[in-house]
Amino acid sequence: MPIPSPIAWTPRHTIRILDQTLLPGEERYLDLDTVDAVAEAIRTLRVRGAPLIGIAAAMGLTLAGAGRPLTLDAVRAAAATLGATRPTAVNLHWALDRMLARAERTAAAGGDLSTALRDEANAIWEEDRVMCARIGAAGADLIGGDAVVLTHCNAGALATGGMGTALAPVYVLHAAGRRVSVVADETRPLLQGSRLTAWELGRAGVPVTVIADGMVASRLRQGDVTCVLVGADRIAANGDVANKIGTYGVALAARAHGVPFYVAAPTSTIDPATPDGAHIPIEERAPEEVTGWRGHPAAPAGARAWNPAFDVTPAELVTAIITDRGVFAPRDVAAAV
Amino acid sequence: MPIPSPIAWTPRHTIRILDQTLLPGEERYLDLDTVDAVAEAIRTLRVRGAPLIGIAAAMGLTLAGAGRPLTLDAVRAAAATLGATRPTAVNLHWALDRMLARAERTAAAGGDLSTALRDEANAIWEEDRVMCARIGAAGADLIGGDAVVLTHCNAGALATGGMGTALAPVYVLHAAGRRVSVVADETRPLLQGSRLTAWELGRAGVPVTVIADGMVASRLRQGDVTCVLVGADRIAANGDVANKIGTYGVALAARAHGVPFYVAAPTSTIDPATPDGAHIPIEERAPEEVTGWRGHPAAPAGARAWNPAFDVTPAELVTAIITDRGVFAPRDVAAAV
Repeated sequence: MPIPSPIAWTPRHTIRILDQTLLPGEERYLDLDTVDAVAEAIRTLRVRGAPLIGIAAAMGLTLAGAGRPLTLDAVRAAAATLGATRPTAVNLHWALDRMLARAERTAAAGGDLSTALRDEANAIWEEDRVMCARIGAAGADLIGGDAVVLTHCNAGALATGGMGTALAPVYVLHAAGRRVSVVADETRPLLQGSRLTAWELGRAGVPVTVIADGMVASRLRQGDVTCVLVGADRIAANGDVANKIGTYGVALAARAHGVPFYVAAPTSTIDPATPDGAHIPIEERAPEEVTGWRGHPAAPAGARAWNPAFDVTPAELVTAIITDRGVFAPRDVAAAV
Repeated sequence: MPIPSPIAWTPRHTIRILDQTLLPGEERYLDLDTVDAVAEAIRTLRVRGAPLIGIAAAMGLTLAGAGRPLTLDAVRAAAATLGATRPTAVNLHWALDRMLARAERTAAAGGDLSTALRDEANAIWEEDRVMCARIGAAGADLIGGDAVVLTHCNAGALATGGMGTALAPVYVLHAAGRRVSVVADETRPLLQGSRLTAWELGRAGVPVTVIADGMVASRLRQGDVTCVLVGADRIAANGDVANKIGTYGVALAARAHGVPFYVAAPTSTIDPATPDGAHIPIEERAPEEVTGWRGHPAAPAGARAWNPAFDVTPAELVTAIITDRGVFAPRDVAAAV
């Protein structure tokens, strides 16, 4: 059974998204017809995953005219709105900058902004699909055969415009008839592992076992995990990797057990302008995500919480970074872009 | 405001427990009047925490007569029932063995079993209260002043017959007017950190911040955590520590950041008959605890899960073990008993 695409155009050129906050219980699609609706969907994680956020923002920019012909001013205002939604993902800004540059070139040449921006958004999306496939091929080569892959959060089809980043090698190996299975940690607070990774792998027929985040170190001690494979929201020039909160602890456990720790990401995730992880802004989200569990209170009323959405895994804990341009040692990753 | 006691005798010599599965939303007490009811309460974690399990089992043994005069056979059968509830906690077997020995001595001397077993259970409980206070004093001396303590699971008043084990030094420092605060990780799958630790510390007026388990490594990187302080369910002769699943990952993160990792436990937790952590049986619980929370699903229907209730932290990651007989290097812990 094919994996449902998390994003699509409607015939009216509005944007149809799979509302990922409702998975795995409900598979509901929303049609978004304003920039604000797209911004809300990104902010509330209905659309999430660094590559998919970039695609959604690019597509969202085409709605800047609000039914009237697009103007450069409207496109710039929409880019500001969309760019303010999530501070950590670099793909978001990369996609918006690329869309703005196309808009400016088109305006300067007297071309049609709507057509140009739709073309550019489609190009970003299609390139992401191709990048995912390349990451899948490179990662499958690196892993080389049957494997038990431990992953954190969701860097799969639901996070991208294609077959995913961290899960792409899994899909490639599975399609090649290899015995590949996945251990997915649940990834509190928002449970992207148990809700999304387990859902899309199940759809694709890949065996998956869910564990709580605190079980990762014990699971790696069992000795049968081939490698850890995670995505990235931003990779600094020195190879430090910002990814979903919890990734750093997984990397420490992988190091303690000699399990390779691979990061899979398109080259658009690499930010040569950020020298190291200390310079990556880390989004802090509402404490209620931590003090509750899908809306059910899990802590006393009024309890304080800390809720950083990402953490930074230092380059020295990363075995290799798998990109659409091949596999890099973390220290060499800036050379990929 | 004093912390409610998690266990008590009723005037009818039945056992009143605080149902910890309902916290923090509801503070409900249950009166248990059969061995099976006590066994059910231990198995389902209405009563939990290694020291409190021992106390509850000891008190539960006094119900073996089911209203009729106690017999040695009935006590032995009840001990078997209660001993089968949780395989990892050594205090459970320690308490039951002690109760059985008292029963046998009493029967041999022709004494009254009911009175003797109530006395013995009360002695176990009272000794635990004293042990908690001693652990609190020893730990407070070790920490020495103002502190930010990171803890995992709940090893507080709710887990013991007194002021707790890991939280005892916190209460002692707080009572002494020190500025002490706690970072409590939520401890999936059963959320004893956010539900129980945050609740009892809040009652006692100790500031607490809840974080998801995956945030521990990032929190320790901030640099302001004085020490990690956790309880134990069993300590092997070589100093390896079995404790709530997730403890091992916290210990790895503490080591990576040079933060002292202290284990606080009564000497009854030390099991000289278990040479090392590999010999500690690890309870595996139902997968539904991982694939959902309180009946709310978080993973696709039918998803597989792995749910070990405990993990083993190797002695080399433990800075010191704080007991009622003082502070020990993990390698020396067998000398404490």
